[in-house]
Amino acid sequence: MSKLLIVGTVAFDAIETPFGKTDKILGGAGTYIGLAASQFGIDSNIVSVVGGDFPEEYLTMLQNKNIETSGIEIVENGKTFFWSGKYHNDLNSRDTLETQLNVLADFNPVVPEDYRDAKIVMLGNLHPGVQMSVIAQMTEKPKLIVLDTMNFWMDNTLDELLEVISKVDVITINDEEARQLSGEYSLVKAAQKIHELGPKYVVIKKGEHGALLFNHDNVFFAPALPLEDVYDPTGAGDTFAGGFVGYLSQTEDFSFENMKNAIIHGSNLASFCVEKFGTERMESLTKKEIYGRLQQFKNLTQFEIELS
Amino acid sequence: MSKLLIVGTVAFDAIETPFGKTDKILGGAGTYIGLAASQFGIDSNIVSVVGGDFPEEYLTMLQNKNIETSGIEIVENGKTFFWSGKYHNDLNSRDTLETQLNVLADFNPVVPEDYRDAKIVMLGNLHPGVQMSVIAQMTEKPKLIVLDTMNFWMDNTLDELLEVISKVDVITINDEEARQLSGEYSLVKAAQKIHELGPKYVVIKKGEHGALLFNHDNVFFAPALPLEDVYDPTGAGDTFAGGFVGYLSQTEDFSFENMKNAIIHGSNLASFCVEKFGTERMESLTKKEIYGRLQQFKNLTQFEIELS
Repeated sequence: MSKLLIVGTVAFDAIETPFGKTDKILGGAGTYIGLAASQFGIDSNIVSVVGGDFPEEYLTMLQNKNIETSGIEIVENGKTFFWSGKYHNDLNSRDTLETQLNVLADFNPVVPEDYRDAKIVMLGNLHPGVQMSVIAQMTEKPKLIVLDTMNFWMDNTLDELLEVISKVDVITINDEEARQLSGEYSLVKAAQKIHELGPKYVVIKKGEHGALLFNHDNVFFAPALPLEDVYDPTGAGDTFAGGFVGYLSQTEDFSFENMKNAIIHGSNLASFCVEKFGTERMESLTKKEIYGRLQQFKNLTQFEIELS
Repeated sequence: MSKLLIVGTVAFDAIETPFGKTDKILGGAGTYIGLAASQFGIDSNIVSVVGGDFPEEYLTMLQNKNIETSGIEIVENGKTFFWSGKYHNDLNSRDTLETQLNVLADFNPVVPEDYRDAKIVMLGNLHPGVQMSVIAQMTEKPKLIVLDTMNFWMDNTLDELLEVISKVDVITINDEEARQLSGEYSLVKAAQKIHELGPKYVVIKKGEHGALLFNHDNVFFAPALPLEDVYDPTGAGDTFAGGFVGYLSQTEDFSFENMKNAIIHGSNLASFCVEKFGTERMESLTKKEIYGRLQQFKNLTQFEIELS
């Protein structure tokens, strides 16, 4: 079992989908990654920043799941990062209604002393300068650095982003972003180009269409579980990443074969995340539910065919 | 091994994609279905109609693949059905440039005497009245009737289409059409509604995003193989259907477990179809290539995870 250092926003979201809307609720990439990874019984710590308005009970909830919060700086006279968005009817696209950076605008991440030797680092979607600062604070070279990012940083801070990408082992990115970053429409070719930027492993997230894991000539695909209803896609990508790194932290096996399992675990957890608004489903999730649904993933994908 | 009766167009296509364009070449749902199914060493016959302009060499090519053409009526003073289309840059959508129904306008299908007891019937995309006429000509109730259709018939001949749907065991349909037919956005709910219309098995084709097989509570998913280049998607859906029924005709096992394999075989063959224009790749395809790529499908999807 390896210590997992998570970097990502811990924030407020207000979400509207065709199925309803929420007031300000707990959100943020760091939160979703932490909740998903916590299912694997590992030690983790989130590096983030919140304002004085951030409820103590949210931190307590994370701590109760064995997620350390000593990396979450509290700026008493500041306000917590807030995002609000409205999903379209197909839930595949959304409009951002409001973004208040607040304390995130001046975020200067500090990695807690006892996590500077963490073997696994998960860099959630944030300014690449923040991500690089975290890498620089590690006193021992991590065994695995996983990066999540998005098109916003490609548009606005590409050079800094490419610098971070060159330092990581795994990048998770969605299909459109992979195309933008590589200039290739074919995802196979896009992954090849992204390998050349540094990452040995390229994970391309396709939302409801599943996720692809590339390691040069090796390719693995995990579908998204077909669900009767999706209520809120917020956090699904972060939950996927959290399941992926959580499983790898638990098993400490970074072979391609084991990464396949990590991808399945990530997809499995993401399938729960979208079933309720915000973090609600992830907070109540049990091991029994998780393993029951892994069986569904097996049923969905495994076949016996004669190769002769 | 069961005799397979195929009903579908045998036609001319002119295709333009970002990678090039063709003159009038061999096309049609019946052609693609037949070529794919022929890989399974079965007896098949295509019910269709062509004009006097249809080259004898195309019929010879089909016969050389053990596809009987006695069901293909030749209207000497008529012209063969012609379709031309242009694909958009992403190859996921296309514009029809021209459709000449020609001899298809008055197509009155006649099932050859020796195929009226065929155990498996594949109804390719055609007017539902034509599909129903073929079902009516069967002297023995087929063990499996598979229907392919499209939104055009939902828009224009819905009552006739629903009548055919009520008679078949399997329907193959794309995701948007499944939504249109069922009025449900969720594909899980759409499949449930379509089950209620008759078919025990519902196959939802998602193009580059793979295909889902539903049999009430059982669900199976086959991805499309990620390819470096897709040159021409024409015929991929028909090739998928042809591989599906071809494998079922060979094995005569209509269990859900075996249908999984049929779906994989269909996806496998479709992955070849798109690699060249028209039927070119399917005409030259070898068993060795097929089994090599089935291994790639296994590598892509199979995993070993502990369920404890």
